[in-house]
Amino acid sequence: MQAPQFKDFAKEMVDYIANYLENIRDRRVLPEVQPGYLKPLIPAEAPEKPESWEAVMADIERVIMPGVTHWHSPKFHAYFPTANSYPAIVADMLSGAIACIGFTWIASPACTELEVEMLNWLGKMLGLPEEFLASSGGEAGGVIQGTASEATLVALLGAKAKAIKRAQEDHPEWDETTIISKLVGYTSNQSHSSVERAGLLGGVKLRSLKADSNLQLRGETLEAAIKEDLAEGLIPFYAVCTLGTTNTCAFDRLDELGPVGNKYNVWIHVDAAYAGSAFVCPEYRHLMKGIETADSFNFNPHKWMLVNFDCSAMWLKEPYWIVNAFNVDPLYLKHDMQGSAPDYRHWQIPLGRRFRALKLWFVLRLYGVENIQAHIRRHCAFAKQFEALCVADSRFEIFTTVQMGLVCFKLKGSNDLSEALLKKINGRGKIHMVPSKVNDVYFLRMAVCSRFTEAEDIDYSWKEVSAAADELLAEKSKRNVPDGTAMCATVLLTHPISLYLC
Amino acid sequence: MQAPQFKDFAKEMVDYIANYLENIRDRRVLPEVQPGYLKPLIPAEAPEKPESWEAVMADIERVIMPGVTHWHSPKFHAYFPTANSYPAIVADMLSGAIACIGFTWIASPACTELEVEMLNWLGKMLGLPEEFLASSGGEAGGVIQGTASEATLVALLGAKAKAIKRAQEDHPEWDETTIISKLVGYTSNQSHSSVERAGLLGGVKLRSLKADSNLQLRGETLEAAIKEDLAEGLIPFYAVCTLGTTNTCAFDRLDELGPVGNKYNVWIHVDAAYAGSAFVCPEYRHLMKGIETADSFNFNPHKWMLVNFDCSAMWLKEPYWIVNAFNVDPLYLKHDMQGSAPDYRHWQIPLGRRFRALKLWFVLRLYGVENIQAHIRRHCAFAKQFEALCVADSRFEIFTTVQMGLVCFKLKGSNDLSEALLKKINGRGKIHMVPSKVNDVYFLRMAVCSRFTEAEDIDYSWKEVSAAADELLAEKSKRNVPDGTAMCATVLLTHPISLYLC
Repeated sequence: MQAPQFKDFAKEMVDYIANYLENIRDRRVLPEVQPGYLKPLIPAEAPEKPESWEAVMADIERVIMPGVTHWHSPKFHAYFPTANSYPAIVADMLSGAIACIGFTWIASPACTELEVEMLNWLGKMLGLPEEFLASSGGEAGGVIQGTASEATLVALLGAKAKAIKRAQEDHPEWDETTIISKLVGYTSNQSHSSVERAGLLGGVKLRSLKADSNLQLRGETLEAAIKEDLAEGLIPFYAVCTLGTTNTCAFDRLDELGPVGNKYNVWIHVDAAYAGSAFVCPEYRHLMKGIETADSFNFNPHKWMLVNFDCSAMWLKEPYWIVNAFNVDPLYLKHDMQGSAPDYRHWQIPLGRRFRALKLWFVLRLYGVENIQAHIRRHCAFAKQFEALCVADSRFEIFTTVQMGLVCFKLKGSNDLSEALLKKINGRGKIHMVPSKVNDVYFLRMAVCSRFTEAEDIDYSWKEVSAAADELLAEKSKRNVPDGTAMCATVLLTHPISLYLC
Repeated sequence: MQAPQFKDFAKEMVDYIANYLENIRDRRVLPEVQPGYLKPLIPAEAPEKPESWEAVMADIERVIMPGVTHWHSPKFHAYFPTANSYPAIVADMLSGAIACIGFTWIASPACTELEVEMLNWLGKMLGLPEEFLASSGGEAGGVIQGTASEATLVALLGAKAKAIKRAQEDHPEWDETTIISKLVGYTSNQSHSSVERAGLLGGVKLRSLKADSNLQLRGETLEAAIKEDLAEGLIPFYAVCTLGTTNTCAFDRLDELGPVGNKYNVWIHVDAAYAGSAFVCPEYRHLMKGIETADSFNFNPHKWMLVNFDCSAMWLKEPYWIVNAFNVDPLYLKHDMQGSAPDYRHWQIPLGRRFRALKLWFVLRLYGVENIQAHIRRHCAFAKQFEALCVADSRFEIFTTVQMGLVCFKLKGSNDLSEALLKKINGRGKIHMVPSKVNDVYFLRMAVCSRFTEAEDIDYSWKEVSAAADELLAEKSKRNVPDGTAMCATVLLTHPISLYLC
């Protein structure tokens, strides 16, 4: 493909994208296809000869769109939002054209340096304490990871390296295998499954601690667990504090966990994947009280801050524990210009990295802080709007306090009833939600996801929930319960979603 | 930003990209900036109010481009190529607009299903045995990973899970910690540093075995190591076979390693990150002889197959070892539709994933197999062209056989002399190369990287090398050796590159 064809093709794609997004509300949010739908639509082998770009363009509606779940429709309320914005799309175009691999400073200085500065911008926007920021002039700093699950793993590996070092100093007679077998980390039973997975991947024990009745992990629970483990000769080393859980958007008590972590030399990692974006609004910062006691903090601009996936922002007070844990040839570091020029390949699991800071730069400049705040506040208000509609209907009840852009609700009555309601909602195909289950209570999650959402969309979604309930309860009253033959997609979707976060 | 502004901005960016790439040859390939150059060029904080897209556009040349290393310039010969093509850029635009997170089939069926089919297309193009492909109808299949380093780690974790299971069956009295402490994997002393890092991350021993005089790892070397370790009561479980090493593009003897691996129940992972793309040309497939004996195979279309980063293709004969190792809630699998619809979140380290199969689909259709073959063959011919120029100059010598698009060469004489030459070349700034060092011999690597490269570019690069040598040798003859005060960038670049692959 030569430049003139590229220009035609790319500009046609620009128009297609604008048209797709501006009219996304008109598409069925959840596809009706069955597994295997795509295979018969394309040849079994790649073509020998090149095809025209017009042929490819035509196949988007024929092959791809029938199988797309439209995450950016105002009718999409599943999982948590994933970001999408025009500035981010254009920035990614530039990133694709420069197409550098920023594993070291010299491999493309702009790629590393813009990332350092954007993490400073972002950290200041959120009100992170100075001691997390490279702009403080110390060792600390931020980095863009691919996903929150990688950030959790990276922090765990840093904490592990730090704990091993300390144990070796205290007990020179212990070998590394012995030390690792004694390490124990902590998380809440409400935290995301990726935390448990980080423990598996990192080869260390992670204890799941019980959250309180508000689904928040408390300091006294952590301290009791640490004391138990110390008494058994174990080495507590790492705890994950979730600000905004996947199930219900509950906030662990960082103000209690942090001091406990500091007291016992336990690395506190804050996972604020979804809710962290809200800290751009000062009125939500009380939810991260105690942040100065944490060792690492992570949130996903690619969730709720209009920066397309992947862009997971992470700050570390002591990044050298990560750098040393990942560095397979420490001699190399001696030639480094740490501080002014971090070698980000040592800060992450993969070695290669795209020029992702461009997305942050474009989005922050083209929205401005005030419009990002407005975006967050609008979503929170939409959740309140939905909550009010739900509360006004005596058939329904709210499950846990509404936080941020998430409403957890259920039909009064058995789990089966709410599960049947969800099947009906997804089966009707007009809106899309997924459920969760906490303390054996099954509930539906209405997440405000789209940047196109208006108050009318929330009304629409509520009417759809209500209509599905009408239908279900009418059927129930005739003792004609749905028989579970809904399409496989909706069957799948009745399982709780705790795995689905990124 | 609203749709009309997006259209204007994005179309302006399309023109900018075409102009940038078509005229990339005219830019200085390596930037002249110093660490910290960018910070004074932008404000210390994000703007409160939105800026205009025109202001952002204008800043690309002012802020970004001075710090860009131009990986797609025909004058860029460092590392290995990273891919860049017009069809891939347009595909990524669409991926950014759909912006689904394809962690499960239902989260966007098209995202999962196109990936399954594209990995079938790609596997057939490379001549991979049927038993790796989902189209075979068995358990096997392909997946897009972010980087080759992640694929190496994923394969290691699968091999580890398989070995633990077998050891538990053979020795029910051993606990998992005991088993893990006995596991030992193997790699060549020529393999990429990410293999060593995978061992660190996976918490297992990896032995570095000596390659032969052709820098190939041989079967008898692996077998001797396995026998030694078995005699010591260890459990050999994993071996990495590199096809196309970073240092010199050497090919381990898969035809020997594979049978040894099969004999001793050692998982053979093939890392063909760069060179794998060449197997699209039948004349290079003899270099992967024995592929049917491997357990997993990985190469990076984002290196040499015109698909922008990130797109690392991996096939597994038995993906369930990975799926089980990563799955934190096996109950979920019971509702799965494996085969027709893999849940790719279980196949990788992160949970989230973009719609990357679109890039493969666009590139394969808009180039066609024949043009991808032509691209590979052109690069290989350019390497031969450079080799011939080098051989014709009696001051130079070739280091190891030229393979694919890589020429390893040096000035006759000491390491210091070649190191000084490289400093001079990078200091002159007209072309860019990085060095390597094998068996204490320092040499320069000339990798053919750009899809824009023409025969005249190779002549240009050779003339530049030759001119730098003229200068250096003239200075030497006056006993006026360069004093090492070259800019810091070039100082950094004289260190071997074994870390820099992705």
